[in-house]
Amino acid sequence: MAITVVKPEDIEKRSMEIITSELNGRTWPEPQFSIVKRCIHTSADFDYADNLKFSKDAENIGVQAIRNGAHIVTDTKMAAAGINKNKLKEYGGEVHCFISDDDVVKAAKERGCTRATICMEKGAEIAKDHPVIFAIGNAPTALVRLAELIDSGELKPALIIGAPVGFVNVVESKELIMDRDVPYIVPVGRKGGSNIAATICNAMMYYKG
Amino acid sequence: MAITVVKPEDIEKRSMEIITSELNGRTWPEPQFSIVKRCIHTSADFDYADNLKFSKDAENIGVQAIRNGAHIVTDTKMAAAGINKNKLKEYGGEVHCFISDDDVVKAAKERGCTRATICMEKGAEIAKDHPVIFAIGNAPTALVRLAELIDSGELKPALIIGAPVGFVNVVESKELIMDRDVPYIVPVGRKGGSNIAATICNAMMYYKG
Repeated sequence: MAITVVKPEDIEKRSMEIITSELNGRTWPEPQFSIVKRCIHTSADFDYADNLKFSKDAENIGVQAIRNGAHIVTDTKMAAAGINKNKLKEYGGEVHCFISDDDVVKAAKERGCTRATICMEKGAEIAKDHPVIFAIGNAPTALVRLAELIDSGELKPALIIGAPVGFVNVVESKELIMDRDVPYIVPVGRKGGSNIAATICNAMMYYKG
Repeated sequence: MAITVVKPEDIEKRSMEIITSELNGRTWPEPQFSIVKRCIHTSADFDYADNLKFSKDAENIGVQAIRNGAHIVTDTKMAAAGINKNKLKEYGGEVHCFISDDDVVKAAKERGCTRATICMEKGAEIAKDHPVIFAIGNAPTALVRLAELIDSGELKPALIIGAPVGFVNVVESKELIMDRDVPYIVPVGRKGGSNIAATICNAMMYYKG
């Protein structure tokens, strides 16, 4: 096989055409379709055509939140690195990842909980002043803490992207969020990850409808 | 389903046990097995049991390179964020990602090529003084430029992790690397990504054999 020269700006367009074609006519209302396609684009994994679950209108709520200057709080530096911060800034938003902050490390040790748990509490503080999208790509305990903060009335998130990946407590933690009356986008099951959490944020930012 | 309380340090152990069990007795010589398991752990995608291709002894060459202070050059900030930099530093290595550097942006514009192309040239400069592992999680053009630099005798990489993900030129660029006499670890086909490139680096760092 030979490498075909494709202009960088055309690669994404062509990729999306290939994905659309291989979806064999399956389609979703926008901006869901953009989100589904971008998850497949970032993973080359067509399981994301089947596993993404959106609470009622979550995708539009997310797009509007970003346009209204929502901040994004994430549990991983990889997701923070993957989210388009310049684009988010155009709308007035910022990305926060507290996972390696000294005070987070210290508090997690003292309380015997995960650092992700503390990060969510710091995110809930930000949510007092701004709409906040929580983009979780790693830690089930982040989703557990978010559910607690919602139940106690301490947090009203704009949207939760619940995309931890893995084999222990991942499925269950996603169900905790989906059982709550909160806007969510969740890849049901074991799959997800920082790349998926970031790409869902970017898909909502790039959506032009 | 209920959340079972699992100590953070036990989650990885339990995850690896689940992965091993679901591999139904399939096994690989170490440290290949560790790399396969960690790719599955990071993606929850068992395709990595089938698509990872190692050139002869590449996994041991990679482990030794890291222990000898190899630097890692990557094409994405997400992979750079995901690689355990503290652990690498213990061996004397550093992670480099030049993709957003001003001189890279400028040179790519002037020459009409991708920024990843320029990044590989900067990586080849580092390889004059240090062993270098190239961990590519996004850009097929990075692998194309590495192949050219190898062919012209300008670069002898310690190892290439060739894990771009996607639909345009990805498969072909991986084949370019596998056609060369160079140590490589490649997820054959469309799959890969920054998370996979980073996790292969970490698996080699964490390997204790």
